[in-house]
Amino acid sequence: CPSDTPINIKAPHENLWKPLTEQETLSVQEWLYDQKELNLTQFTTAGISDNSIWLIELITPNKTEAVSYLDSSSSSTNNRNSNSSPPKRYARAILFNGGYSVPHVKELQVGPLPISSETKAVSFSYIYQNSTVPGVDGEGVFPFNARTTYGIESTALGAFIVSFMTDIKDPMNDLIGGAYTGSEDDKLTFSWQGPNSFDGNWRRYWLFFMGRGFGAQYLSPTGFFVYVDTSGSDASTWYVRRVVYNHQVFQSLDDFKNAWQNGSIKKGTKINLDDDKWATRQRQGEELALLIEPFCEQRPLDDRVAPESTNFNGSRIRADREEGYVEWMDWSFYTGFNRDTGLTLWDIRFKGEKIIYEISIQEALAQYSGNDPIQSTTAYLDRHYGIGEETRQVLMGYDCPHGALTFNTSYYSDSKFAVNTDAICIFEQDLGFPTSRHSDPTNGWYGSTKGTALHVRSMATVYNYDYMFSYIFYLEGTVEILMGASGYLQATYWDGTQDDYGTRIHDTTMGSVHTHVVNYKVDLDVGGTANSLQTIDLVQEDVKFPWFDEDDPPTKQLRLQKTWVENETSFSVQGNNNNNGQRVLLIGNKEKKNAWGQERMYRIMPGYHTIHNAVKGSGRVLNSAKWGEDDVFIVKHKDTEPSSSTTWNQQMPIYPPVDFSKITTPAESIDQEDLVVYLNLGMHHVPRAEDTPNTLFTDSRSSFFIAPFNYFDDEPSRDIRNAVLLVQDPNSGKYGVEESGSGDDDKTCTPRADVTPAYIGQVETDLSSSG
Amino acid sequence: CPSDTPINIKAPHENLWKPLTEQETLSVQEWLYDQKELNLTQFTTAGISDNSIWLIELITPNKTEAVSYLDSSSSSTNNRNSNSSPPKRYARAILFNGGYSVPHVKELQVGPLPISSETKAVSFSYIYQNSTVPGVDGEGVFPFNARTTYGIESTALGAFIVSFMTDIKDPMNDLIGGAYTGSEDDKLTFSWQGPNSFDGNWRRYWLFFMGRGFGAQYLSPTGFFVYVDTSGSDASTWYVRRVVYNHQVFQSLDDFKNAWQNGSIKKGTKINLDDDKWATRQRQGEELALLIEPFCEQRPLDDRVAPESTNFNGSRIRADREEGYVEWMDWSFYTGFNRDTGLTLWDIRFKGEKIIYEISIQEALAQYSGNDPIQSTTAYLDRHYGIGEETRQVLMGYDCPHGALTFNTSYYSDSKFAVNTDAICIFEQDLGFPTSRHSDPTNGWYGSTKGTALHVRSMATVYNYDYMFSYIFYLEGTVEILMGASGYLQATYWDGTQDDYGTRIHDTTMGSVHTHVVNYKVDLDVGGTANSLQTIDLVQEDVKFPWFDEDDPPTKQLRLQKTWVENETSFSVQGNNNNNGQRVLLIGNKEKKNAWGQERMYRIMPGYHTIHNAVKGSGRVLNSAKWGEDDVFIVKHKDTEPSSSTTWNQQMPIYPPVDFSKITTPAESIDQEDLVVYLNLGMHHVPRAEDTPNTLFTDSRSSFFIAPFNYFDDEPSRDIRNAVLLVQDPNSGKYGVEESGSGDDDKTCTPRADVTPAYIGQVETDLSSSG
Ligand SMILES: [Ca+2]
Ligand SMILES: [Ca+2]
Ligand SMILES: [Ca+2]
Ligand SMILES: [Ca+2]
Ligand SMILES: [Cu+2]
Ligand SMILES: [Cu+2]
Repeated sequence: CPSDTPINIKAPHENLWKPLTEQETLSVQEWLYDQKELNLTQFTTAGISDNSIWLIELITPNKTEAVSYLDSSSSSTNNRNSNSSPPKRYARAILFNGGYSVPHVKELQVGPLPISSETKAVSFSYIYQNSTVPGVDGEGVFPFNARTTYGIESTALGAFIVSFMTDIKDPMNDLIGGAYTGSEDDKLTFSWQGPNSFDGNWRRYWLFFMGRGFGAQYLSPTGFFVYVDTSGSDASTWYVRRVVYNHQVFQSLDDFKNAWQNGSIKKGTKINLDDDKWATRQRQGEELALLIEPFCEQRPLDDRVAPESTNFNGSRIRADREEGYVEWMDWSFYTGFNRDTGLTLWDIRFKGEKIIYEISIQEALAQYSGNDPIQSTTAYLDRHYGIGEETRQVLMGYDCPHGALTFNTSYYSDSKFAVNTDAICIFEQDLGFPTSRHSDPTNGWYGSTKGTALHVRSMATVYNYDYMFSYIFYLEGTVEILMGASGYLQATYWDGTQDDYGTRIHDTTMGSVHTHVVNYKVDLDVGGTANSLQTIDLVQEDVKFPWFDEDDPPTKQLRLQKTWVENETSFSVQGNNNNNGQRVLLIGNKEKKNAWGQERMYRIMPGYHTIHNAVKGSGRVLNSAKWGEDDVFIVKHKDTEPSSSTTWNQQMPIYPPVDFSKITTPAESIDQEDLVVYLNLGMHHVPRAEDTPNTLFTDSRSSFFIAPFNYFDDEPSRDIRNAVLLVQDPNSGKYGVEESGSGDDDKTCTPRADVTPAYIGQVETDLSSSG
Repeated sequence: CPSDTPINIKAPHENLWKPLTEQETLSVQEWLYDQKELNLTQFTTAGISDNSIWLIELITPNKTEAVSYLDSSSSSTNNRNSNSSPPKRYARAILFNGGYSVPHVKELQVGPLPISSETKAVSFSYIYQNSTVPGVDGEGVFPFNARTTYGIESTALGAFIVSFMTDIKDPMNDLIGGAYTGSEDDKLTFSWQGPNSFDGNWRRYWLFFMGRGFGAQYLSPTGFFVYVDTSGSDASTWYVRRVVYNHQVFQSLDDFKNAWQNGSIKKGTKINLDDDKWATRQRQGEELALLIEPFCEQRPLDDRVAPESTNFNGSRIRADREEGYVEWMDWSFYTGFNRDTGLTLWDIRFKGEKIIYEISIQEALAQYSGNDPIQSTTAYLDRHYGIGEETRQVLMGYDCPHGALTFNTSYYSDSKFAVNTDAICIFEQDLGFPTSRHSDPTNGWYGSTKGTALHVRSMATVYNYDYMFSYIFYLEGTVEILMGASGYLQATYWDGTQDDYGTRIHDTTMGSVHTHVVNYKVDLDVGGTANSLQTIDLVQEDVKFPWFDEDDPPTKQLRLQKTWVENETSFSVQGNNNNNGQRVLLIGNKEKKNAWGQERMYRIMPGYHTIHNAVKGSGRVLNSAKWGEDDVFIVKHKDTEPSSSTTWNQQMPIYPPVDFSKITTPAESIDQEDLVVYLNLGMHHVPRAEDTPNTLFTDSRSSFFIAPFNYFDDEPSRDIRNAVLLVQDPNSGKYGVEESGSGDDDKTCTPRADVTPAYIGQVETDLSSSG
């Protein structure tokens, strides 16, 4: 009985995209502390008005260098004895420099690694369109107000909020039924929206307060909002700018207090802070059984374990866990990981040929609407909050099947090296339908190829939302890029004036309409890096053919209109230039043909519903999310343009450090160039009661297929052994097995081992006192 | 170790939609033969110029009657002791009346059943907009030229074709390299396109000839075409109307023969009739290993059986096999089946409430384009050819997982009662992702609900194409209607003049561009039959809010624009009135609200890419496929309009017996009426080399979701036991199980029994000599 554990192999070469190890990270941290001119304060003693290290992570090598190494490496004998040496490793170090007269964020490129006398720190600016700050020398600098909310400011920020909220605890208790004072007994907790700035000149945000409870907080907003200004690195200057309660705007806390004291305030309906079970994931049903027909105590047979996709004959995955390298059914790839965007895939090959150099999430936009200060101002760019940072353990048996290969992830920020065990799962899944089949009663035969696919999955819980990111590799050389969303709505307080902006989902709670757009980079290299874009439009023609009768009307039919697109451009999957899905998008090398003279291409094809941002020109994402304004963008690769976004775009919508419009315009030639596809998954989320407590992955899935199109001479899964062919005996009429499949004898091992769910949580190592 | 076999239960009432049994069918056949005024000739002796029975099947009861029975039945004590009696059963009998001066097709309604003195035959015409024939009395009649090609004409038709093809075997052997003479040694075989008429006044079609071989025929067209006229019921008048070879049109066989004899014919490239392995499903790889790098003999580990979704703890399906009734996780439904459209689902309930009265395929269009007489004339309406008739056995382990519940299907035509064993499979499948989840590092808890769904599947091989039809029931009350296509292309002969119409996929073979549109009827009854249609459009607004600073620009955001649609109408999922997916379609009862005052609705939501017919105004489907001209239609239910198509529409594009435009126009009120949704799945199939030998289900899937939208007060899968909740201990930091799932202990039964593939084929009982 073969083990369910994936089989260990050696990767063909080292993983160029492997995150910094704890040791590497520590060495960079120590080296930075040693550079006196950086004026850094150690984490343990630093405050917001000091200069401190926020983040250290790998800078993935420039593609040009990486490809040159890979090509020389793979031309040698497929082992690590190549003469060519891999690109040197460099770290991205981000300093939050609160200690200068103009406080700022500074990005450094530190390397080469390991630390040696050659190691230098230079401004990490070549990937940015905008990376200067008035009053600060050099490049690779960003306004301090554009920073993430980091560990070092938590004390000052907490004290600031507790201070003014304690001051109004009486009106809070009266109007809301609870207060926030920083105590463990508080009935309220809080959160705030983003962006917190438009241009980095200031930092302001709306705090919203909600009930505490076992998962209830996301669905328990109270309708009380405080607008604060936390600009700069001097916490003593932070102040409350405005208060909103029950549609009444108060220009100060005192105004609010006075209105309450003199009774002029108009009171709203209080949320019930004592009832939170409806908003949690606690199991429902038992108590309902007695009250509501036709609910049963449980669904019949739900005491039995639900079916699970299982390897009866051992895992078919091979992996180099050290190098984060995976092989499955002639597919191979390397994995990478970073704090901003999480899991990345590299050097994806099928049957030995390079297909995709990189697939990676670039950014995730969630833009809300509503009649309150939160929803009308929210537009999250989740890279800022850290899709990678929030990529946590997936639970075997629920998020992924037992027996999946898992990788840990890690990142460094706020002086801790954090490891999330089993945060990436990789498993082969029964698709539930064959890859292909034909049953032929005419000729008396039947054939079918078992359908399975490799899923590479990570899940990121960015506060309320749980994103599921899956890359699905099919037997025939197709990749599906799929995103789904679960977790909690960013709900808000409901009253009748909100009806046009969403759905009331409880007494005083509503879900507000919003749009999710997740941007992916797909760097296809189809038959080399010299690629072109072809569109095929299906157009209607009227044509007279000689074989018809004289009086027959012209034939109305489709004709393929093929166009090689000359310059960088974008496409809509729906509407505009592509009504009714009549446009095919293809990328490949014009010069490479298959056996039938057809250009060897890959097709970019929508799967589950795909959409882009529905709002045009919003100041919240004015120039920071230009990639979200259409479905698919095709641009020319540049080492200086590795990404469509960055950590700082969230707070800099007017002057985003990465301005995607500068990547697409002026439109450069894409004729036989190294092309990169940016495509969007997402959904217009119109909430419904069925989003309580959590949104369902079923309906929220969105996907694109990247599929071979005349890349091969025929269908490449024809070599699969998990396929069967039966032929009818012309005499007996009975079907006999002509070619049996790998599964067609008695393989009934049950590798299913420990099924007890085990959630470990993030393991953090404090590096602040190391070295 | 519980059995993997679904558990037997009794259906709440008898299945009103259960197909006629063999005994019922036989009794109707005998009764018809007894009616002397029908002038029927027994099958064994009938020729095309006789009157004979082609088809006998159930007429499903009128909805009004059925609902009245169901409502009275379910108001009693949920067993079969209800006082109300079920609607009487009636048969549809189709006579091919070749024996009259105006030969015609006649449809009869025979009943009530069982046969008694009350049993009568009346014209079955009330479901047709057009059902008369000039020169024939009464209604329920259709032109003889609109008939299906039936068993009784096979001798005459075969003799006709063999006769003229034998006459030209010398030029065929010379030009094509093979001939068709009706012998087992022929190198060629043939097929023909449809429609075969525009209005029933004539019956003509293009025969195309291709190489014979083990599955190769579909990909081996020779480029030789013969246009025949087989109008009427006198085979002696049938004739060859035209011949096309290598773009040369010959007005007769003699013209063709002469041109060949006198050498004036322009010869084309011969297809290689000796090499067909490339076009078969025989396994590839072994021989390639020696020739082409980097192909391996097989993919690594493919000798291991691929993973399979498995019930470790027994099946969770309950079924009444006698009645074709199924229950799973609070879902329940009945199954039906018919020759034209195959599997149908009835009285679909979730948690005891009726959701959908009927889901059924109505029609499947495949419309081709090309520069030859076949592809430029083909527009199949597969109902004519029999989607049900071609619904054959699914193979366990490939088409569906082992342990699936299966139902047999049956139909009667050409005097045989045909049974297809295991033609419907019903199984619960591991979705590979959770239904919902939230991981909460902020509050220290994690919860996930296992994702599974019930799949109800049938597969129909209509000659070359294998359709997969799946209905997927999710735990939260959502149904996904999914269609995929595999099997063979209707390929054609390739030469350079075809480049604008598809893709060359072999030396002399091409795949031609075509569109598949599969029409479904979804009769939602949401909170009763009185339903209305609401659209929610996401529109952009610019608004000034009081909480912003004076100089802030207006907020740009989305607003929900809700509209109750007054009259029957249609919608595009992409483009036209719905760019970028910004329109939500909802159906429900205006008067029924959930706990939060929201109308209880179901949403019609696109899943995998959905399209409609891309060609407007083609004579081949002029009025016969009006349902294919948009994505979603909402109409008012009528007992006289049970369907969007019929068997005869294929051959009657100008005057279709069911004219969908008369169902949609004039647009009737849909305000609180019994509404029916007709929606389309499909794809524009732009062939690629990867369609050889068979199209892949991966990319061809198309689907719609029917999902609750404020139908419930919250998310209904909260009662699921296959769900887990873990909570972090604030002291130890460790996560402990708060609520364990059904699968979280050691359930490792391996119910996987016999995995040897067994294909049985159709079992036919000859009823021609019975009685
Ligand atoms: Ca550019
Ligand atoms: Ca590229
Ligand atoms: Ca109507
Ligand atoms: Ca209805
Ligand atoms: Cu959402
Ligand atoms: Cu097709």
